[in-house]
Amino acid sequence: MKWDEISQTQCSVARSSAVLGDRWTLLILSDCFLGVKRFEQFQQRLSIPRTTLANRLARLEEHDVLQRRRYQEHPERFEYRLTDKGLDLHPVITTIVGWGDKHYAGESGPPIIHTHKSCGHDIHAVLTCPECGEAIGPRDIAVRKRANAPGVATVERGPITAG
Amino acid sequence: MKWDEISQTQCSVARSSAVLGDRWTLLILSDCFLGVKRFEQFQQRLSIPRTTLANRLARLEEHDVLQRRRYQEHPERFEYRLTDKGLDLHPVITTIVGWGDKHYAGESGPPIIHTHKSCGHDIHAVLTCPECGEAIGPRDIAVRKRANAPGVATVERGPITAG
Repeated sequence: MKWDEISQTQCSVARSSAVLGDRWTLLILSDCFLGVKRFEQFQQRLSIPRTTLANRLARLEEHDVLQRRRYQEHPERFEYRLTDKGLDLHPVITTIVGWGDKHYAGESGPPIIHTHKSCGHDIHAVLTCPECGEAIGPRDIAVRKRANAPGVATVERGPITAG
Repeated sequence: MKWDEISQTQCSVARSSAVLGDRWTLLILSDCFLGVKRFEQFQQRLSIPRTTLANRLARLEEHDVLQRRRYQEHPERFEYRLTDKGLDLHPVITTIVGWGDKHYAGESGPPIIHTHKSCGHDIHAVLTCPECGEAIGPRDIAVRKRANAPGVATVERGPITAG
């Protein structure tokens, strides 16, 4: 299956991964949530080739994740802001950072500390059930195919077991 | 900066994205959490070229996300199971699926329904603060650089605003 076809399928993760499955894109989005908006800032912080950056920003704009706005007329300069759809990626970037903090930060600890403003604690956010409030782990979820959903299949599964 | 160098930096999202920033990898991991373990199953479900699949599985094994186990001797056959580090990716894959379900599922709804086993509700898990239990959105977190953290910089930021 070609990528173009995958992004046309019903599978949510296939469509999402067609947008998110790129290393520079994840780094750019992470910077967006740190408040970075301008081309030159992204470029300097990430040491990303300018054509690559322009390409990734254009793709994110095309997918309605970022919106480009002119902030200066002479010379013309643009900034990139998260759209509502882009802001909805906050849990994705937060959990990716959390995984990196846990497994790659090393002895000195993670490079950036996240504080929950309203309660004042330094935290790593956790996934919970919106109905009962319990924490959700990989063994807490059962999946089933939606009736008549085309192009996807779940598999008969035993419990997920660690390696 | 080359990818090899990025994965050596202190930045958690840089290291994570060096592993996760690939479209096939996200699809493979999503399948792992649906209980898929065998090469042939991945191959058939994703229609992924065999050499690409072998390459991605090897990388995930190298990064200690999957562990390969022989399940048959004649002929030799292997399956791939999530390690503890791999299971820690559950929030990442869950939030990516959630984003896809919200923005790409279309009128007919998401292809796969997720049920919280212990309370019985069909849910999309949400990010919350482990200290106070409140839901966490992009405007609820303040970030600061850890003292003496090398190679990262936060930026002065105003509030994140939608585009």
